Amino acid sequence: MRNVSIIGIGQTKVGELWDQSIRDLAVDAVRAAMRDAHIESADALYIGNMLSGEVAGQAHLGPLVADAAGLRGIEAAKIEAACGSAAYALRLAYLAVAGGMHDTIIVCGVEKMTDRAPGNVTNGLARASDGELEAAQGLSFVAINALLMQRYMHEFGWRKADFAPFAVNAHLNAASNPNAMFHNLISHQDFEQAKMIASPINLLDSSPMADGAAAVIVTADPLAREFAERPIRIKASTSATDSLALADRRDLLTLDAARKSALRAYDIAGVKPADIDLFELHDAFTIMSALSLEAAGFAERGQGVRLALDEQIGVEGWLPISTMGGLKGRGHPVGATGLYQVVEAAMQLRGKAGRNQVERAQLAMTQNIGGSGATVTTHILEAWQ
Amino acid sequence: MRNVSIIGIGQTKVGELWDQSIRDLAVDAVRAAMRDAHIESADALYIGNMLSGEVAGQAHLGPLVADAAGLRGIEAAKIEAACGSAAYALRLAYLAVAGGMHDTIIVCGVEKMTDRAPGNVTNGLARASDGELEAAQGLSFVAINALLMQRYMHEFGWRKADFAPFAVNAHLNAASNPNAMFHNLISHQDFEQAKMIASPINLLDSSPMADGAAAVIVTADPLAREFAERPIRIKASTSATDSLALADRRDLLTLDAARKSALRAYDIAGVKPADIDLFELHDAFTIMSALSLEAAGFAERGQGVRLALDEQIGVEGWLPISTMGGLKGRGHPVGATGLYQVVEAAMQLRGKAGRNQVERAQLAMTQNIGGSGATVTTHILEAWQ
Repeated sequence: MRNVSIIGIGQTKVGELWDQSIRDLAVDAVRAAMRDAHIESADALYIGNMLSGEVAGQAHLGPLVADAAGLRGIEAAKIEAACGSAAYALRLAYLAVAGGMHDTIIVCGVEKMTDRAPGNVTNGLARASDGELEAAQGLSFVAINALLMQRYMHEFGWRKADFAPFAVNAHLNAASNPNAMFHNLISHQDFEQAKMIASPINLLDSSPMADGAAAVIVTADPLAREFAERPIRIKASTSATDSLALADRRDLLTLDAARKSALRAYDIAGVKPADIDLFELHDAFTIMSALSLEAAGFAERGQGVRLALDEQIGVEGWLPISTMGGLKGRGHPVGATGLYQVVEAAMQLRGKAGRNQVERAQLAMTQNIGGSGATVTTHILEAWQ
Repeated sequence: MRNVSIIGIGQTKVGELWDQSIRDLAVDAVRAAMRDAHIESADALYIGNMLSGEVAGQAHLGPLVADAAGLRGIEAAKIEAACGSAAYALRLAYLAVAGGMHDTIIVCGVEKMTDRAPGNVTNGLARASDGELEAAQGLSFVAINALLMQRYMHEFGWRKADFAPFAVNAHLNAASNPNAMFHNLISHQDFEQAKMIASPINLLDSSPMADGAAAVIVTADPLAREFAERPIRIKASTSATDSLALADRRDLLTLDAARKSALRAYDIAGVKPADIDLFELHDAFTIMSALSLEAAGFAERGQGVRLALDEQIGVEGWLPISTMGGLKGRGHPVGATGLYQVVEAAMQLRGKAGRNQVERAQLAMTQNIGGSGATVTTHILEAWQ
């Protein structure tokens, strides 16, 4: 098994990008990553995407993007695992390169959500849940997370306002990320007064629908030094699944797949949670931030909120999360998000995160979640010495 | 690099299966393959599927099927490359096992097309083509193939009736395949009199929309003998892409990606076209049969039709194709088709193809096409001695 490293990263702005098609976005990110890695070709292109068929009217993204990016002919396909698509695409690239079957793979995550009426997109997103047991009963994806949040507050005695620091931190970090969707700061009061969507989830608990694309280039370590000044090693890549339907879960408030995926990643990387310098978690809703922190071993069950209340999650905190704004502040182009997380972690490990830089960042973890925890893919990344 | 073999196969009937959901179909095929291989678990589950989001209202098939098949927790994701989805899912499994990163992977192809009005499905299928350059201009997928067929007839002087043997052969072979959608024989006259869809393509040039699922289990050779009496070795697995839009092709009548993928497969397997005992090709339309035979090196440019007219494509011919009915006769559940081809080839190599058995079949080739040739994945399979 070969070590695998990231030698190039690229991203587009996140937002309502009405002048760019899904093809344009993917090509921009792919070409940026190729320039960054100084490569002109690769062995394969894997595209993480959830909704291109339903929302953008375009399936078959693999050859579409390959051709438009100047890579006609290389093998290419789309990988879909709902909002967890992009990190799983990276994992497949990792497997092919680590096993010696390919040398260099381009991985891109892309989503185009804002050209359609939000209702259509809400419909599309609901397909990440169990179609028969959940979506067909009228449960939107926000509603599913509202059930989780309600239960969490009930069981552990938290108030709604206790979740505010997650959103406040995300907007603060997004403000100094030029690619983020939001640059406005928000206060605890803003959070408490935001418009309700599905009680107890309001507008500022929720990450926004967005367009965007991010890409990384991975290669085997023997080659990595040739291409990059400071490659980022993938110390661990793991993935696990759980039931789609909440009702089928072992325990509603434990993200089993996140836990399993994180524990295996620590084991493979030979590290423990306290070694992690920053954690790009999947804060699609504030409740997911709390559950993710717990599943990954940074907090006891029911105590994820405490980390935020104790001001431990900021860029200068004990465990910086969502350092470039996270899903909430940077925006959540669903099938691209997993690679935004990796690109941002790589920027931190390169020491190139600007005003959002986590000091002496050596080890970063990213965790991308599909559905309400049904697909979870974790990567632990390390800066080369 | 390790040798990889198929140790289990499973399939559902193909047809209008209104009493089974997409989940039911996938689980049936996966469990059948697991029983066939005598395994109770695996390292991963890859699902080939095109339209589940648009047509079946269900994304996120990986964990959905894993959980329902009794495999909760294992890593799982969907792979999409239009009608070429399933074979590419197999290729990803091949890469992970050959490289030593996984030992055993379950690959399933599934599609559920007949619960929706055909117009919706036609819309969905058009997303395999270039959304901006083709679909948005009103070109359906049949129309794209009609353009190809028209040009082929014009350029090489074939008459419409010359394509009849492809459809006649497919229906003949399907008649003795219990899982096939069609069991009716058709005549040359039936073909010539069939209802026109998009001139020159009529109903009997076209494979039908269908529901169905097929699955295979792959493992590394050291393990294969423990599980299967007669494993099927994957001698080569290759994939290549081309532009989605016809207008962007180098040559309208050469399937470049099919050619590239086939040539590389011959090279890796160390065989030549004449060594292949049967070829499961992607006969979504009769024109694709002709173009595939040419791209794979079985006929000169413009002469694929000749093989059929000379009665070389039957089960007892020089090159048996579509031996269990092909896409035309067995049916074409688009995202599942690539694995039906592999399952059927494996049946032939096991000597278990019943009345459709190709005598002394040792070496089979399968070729799964996405779009009108934009994604092409080829496998060469060999019976263990």
